[in-house]
Amino acid sequence: MEIILAKSAGFCFGVKRATQMAFDAAGKHEQISSLGPLIHSPQMVEKLEQEGVRVCHQVEDISDGAVVIRSHGVTAQEVEEIEQSGLLVVDATCPFVKKAQKHADMLSREGYLLVLVGEANHPEVRGIVSYAKGDVRIVATPQEAGKLPKGGKIAMVAQTTQSLENFSEIVAVCLTKAKELRVFNTICDATSVRQNEARQIAGKVDLMLVIGGFNSANTSRLANLCKEVQPCTYHVETGDQLLPDWFEGKEKVGITAGASTPLWIVEDVMKKVKTYSCVID
Amino acid sequence: MEIILAKSAGFCFGVKRATQMAFDAAGKHEQISSLGPLIHSPQMVEKLEQEGVRVCHQVEDISDGAVVIRSHGVTAQEVEEIEQSGLLVVDATCPFVKKAQKHADMLSREGYLLVLVGEANHPEVRGIVSYAKGDVRIVATPQEAGKLPKGGKIAMVAQTTQSLENFSEIVAVCLTKAKELRVFNTICDATSVRQNEARQIAGKVDLMLVIGGFNSANTSRLANLCKEVQPCTYHVETGDQLLPDWFEGKEKVGITAGASTPLWIVEDVMKKVKTYSCVID
Repeated sequence: MEIILAKSAGFCFGVKRATQMAFDAAGKHEQISSLGPLIHSPQMVEKLEQEGVRVCHQVEDISDGAVVIRSHGVTAQEVEEIEQSGLLVVDATCPFVKKAQKHADMLSREGYLLVLVGEANHPEVRGIVSYAKGDVRIVATPQEAGKLPKGGKIAMVAQTTQSLENFSEIVAVCLTKAKELRVFNTICDATSVRQNEARQIAGKVDLMLVIGGFNSANTSRLANLCKEVQPCTYHVETGDQLLPDWFEGKEKVGITAGASTPLWIVEDVMKKVKTYSCVID
Repeated sequence: MEIILAKSAGFCFGVKRATQMAFDAAGKHEQISSLGPLIHSPQMVEKLEQEGVRVCHQVEDISDGAVVIRSHGVTAQEVEEIEQSGLLVVDATCPFVKKAQKHADMLSREGYLLVLVGEANHPEVRGIVSYAKGDVRIVATPQEAGKLPKGGKIAMVAQTTQSLENFSEIVAVCLTKAKELRVFNTICDATSVRQNEARQIAGKVDLMLVIGGFNSANTSRLANLCKEVQPCTYHVETGDQLLPDWFEGKEKVGITAGASTPLWIVEDVMKKVKTYSCVID
């Protein structure tokens, strides 16, 4: 049985950087907390807890030590709260998200109506909009953009994981609304690179495995995309969830993983797949 | 026979303003010239000549008096030449074109690669790009935009008569090229309003007349659009060009006119159509 592992499987730049910073900080500080789970991987969060990184859900629950800000960032108000509490900040916000936050701040100061393309309930989006000083709208679809007011000047930024296609369609709608349109393309292409590679591999294999937290939106999306190409696709969190009969009669297995899936979980799955492969072969 | 006259037929705001300014100036100055024909209507240019407005093709041909700058503007270098020659300037540049010139100046000073969407040989486009201080590209199609360099920041303006559809498609291409995209929608909707109304009327009638100079790009485009809907469409410059047999058996006649067609020509055509109508009825 042949195994094809996606080159883009696993941690993106921002997640890799954030976990590294959390582990480094854990080695330096007695008390360390992350505001919300650092990444959407229960296994990695557990590992971090073993190193002393405690998950807290609000600033007031943290009385002492250092606070790690997770890769998709927090709100400007939360940063202020942390600073006022005298806590030490380990800012692991992804530099691409940070850029979007800075644009939101600058553009709203310059009097633009700020349009953020993304999902209103996503923590990254809540973080970015909190930096806007003026009027701001969160828009997920071209239809929603159709309801924006006409006239004036509009500035746009995107949630870093948005698809360029959706962003582009919303830009076209905003073009009919504003005399001036200023667009910062804050999309990080790690998502589309991973999705395109996964789709390509899914088209070549007869079994596709997508590894990542069940609470990870990007992993679930990845699994759905693969399922469209190869109906025999499974979303698993760990190697323990693999079932031997999935592999019966299969000749090629494709593997990819979400942006928050640690390498050791991918390696564990690989190892287990090889075991099944040997048994079957 | 019923006649439907388009509400949007004839002079747009900029052309109306420019001819008014030329007639006013002719009443005030002994010597008056226009740099190029004021508008693309040979009949109106002739009328202006009778009032003393001479057509010149370069600044050095004008030795004295006032110079009218036509509605689609001239280049920054020509304006400088006129000013250095001590000639009096009557600036009849359309305010919408003026705005595009100002944006080109400001945006290129701010370090953007300026992309002007339009026809490279059109005087309006030559005028606008002449105000750019830095790197500037004229792009007519999405395919041409595909050749733009990647990275950096791009600013965009449009020739005022461009279609929003084409502009929007080129914006989408530029979005894949730049981290920052700043778009000034300098399209004047007079063109699309006139085109949409013409298409609508052409669909209801069995004969369509489009009036305007044979050298007028916007009139020719209007005639072509009507022809797509109603093959029995004629482009005429004056009422004298109407042929009686066009009207035989026709029950509804639609009439529109280009942006540079004077009202008196439209009225003359209307009068002649009514004459044929009476003969036939």
